[in-house]
Amino acid sequence: MKLPVSTEWLLHCATSLAQLEPRATASAAQLAEHYDLPAPYLAKQLQALVRAGVLAATTGPRGGFRLARKPAEITLLQIVEAVDGPSSPYECREIRQQGRGALPAEECRNACILAAKMADAHDAWRRSLAGVSLADILGELPAWAPERTRSLLTGAKDAGSGRRGTPR
Amino acid sequence: MKLPVSTEWLLHCATSLAQLEPRATASAAQLAEHYDLPAPYLAKQLQALVRAGVLAATTGPRGGFRLARKPAEITLLQIVEAVDGPSSPYECREIRQQGRGALPAEECRNACILAAKMADAHDAWRRSLAGVSLADILGELPAWAPERTRSLLTGAKDAGSGRRGTPR
Repeated sequence: MKLPVSTEWLLHCATSLAQLEPRATASAAQLAEHYDLPAPYLAKQLQALVRAGVLAATTGPRGGFRLARKPAEITLLQIVEAVDGPSSPYECREIRQQGRGALPAEECRNACILAAKMADAHDAWRRSLAGVSLADILGELPAWAPERTRSLLTGAKDAGSGRRGTPR
Repeated sequence: MKLPVSTEWLLHCATSLAQLEPRATASAAQLAEHYDLPAPYLAKQLQALVRAGVLAATTGPRGGFRLARKPAEITLLQIVEAVDGPSSPYECREIRQQGRGALPAEECRNACILAAKMADAHDAWRRSLAGVSLADILGELPAWAPERTRSLLTGAKDAGSGRRGTPR
C-alpha cells in the first residue's frame, strides 16, 4: 500500500504556509518553486486542501493560498485524507460468503472479525495522525525556520515580478 | 492506499488452516474451492506465507499447507506483511532538500519531522495488527465453526477424487 507522492508535497506546503504572517499568502507557483515541484499538478492538489477546509484560496494579483484555520486546528490526518480519502487500505469483499465454504447470510450480519481487526488498525493509524497538528510541527522546527521560509517563499513573488532579484 | 485484494484471501485461508486438526493439511485447490478464488494465483500467494514462516508446505499426494507455528504465535501483521511487505505507505523523498527553499544537508541529518510523524502512525498500525493472533481470531468464532470448516475444507479432497460427492 502506498500513499500518493503528493502526500509529502502537501504536508510540506501546509507546514510552509503555517509559517507565513497572518493573512499572507503564497501562490501555487511560489510553492512549486520552493520545493521544485510540477506547478500544474501541485495546484490541483492544493485545491484538494481547499475543498477539505485546510487551505483558503484568494484571487487577484496578490492571490494565493493560506491556512483556512489556525495551525492548532489542522491535523496531519486532515491533510493526508484530503489527498488520499478516508477509506481503509483493507478491502473486505466478503469472501466468507462465497465458494464451497460460504456462510449463510444470517451468520454474516456482523462484520467479519478479520475485517473488524483490520479496521481497528486503520483507526489506530488515523488516531495517531489526528493527534498531530501543524502547531505541533511548527513547535519542532528550529527557531530560524519561519523567518527563512517567509523570506524564501514570499521573496519568490518579488523575484517573479522582476522588481527584486533576491529574497527579502 | 490499498492493500492487495489477496490480503483478505490469506487472512481467511490462514484462519481456516488454523481450524484443522494438528498435522492436517489443505491444498491450494481445496482452499481456492472453499472461497471460490483463482487457484493458480492463490497458490502463489500461499507460497508467500510459507516464505514468511506462517505456513509449512508438504508435498506428495496428501500434501498441502498447514500452519508452521501455533495459532497463538501467528499474528495478523505477519500475514499482511507477507502479502504486502513491511514498508510504510508514506514515502519521504526529501523534498525539503530541493528547490528554492532547499535546506542545507547539515540541517537534514535527522529525519524530517513530518516523515517521523508518518512513521509513528505506521508503527501504531503495525502494533495494532501485531497484537492480534490467529488464536485470538479463533476465540471469536462461533463454537460450530471449526468442525464445519474441517468438514467442508478437507471434504473437498474426497469430492475431488470422485470417491464421495458430499462433505463428511
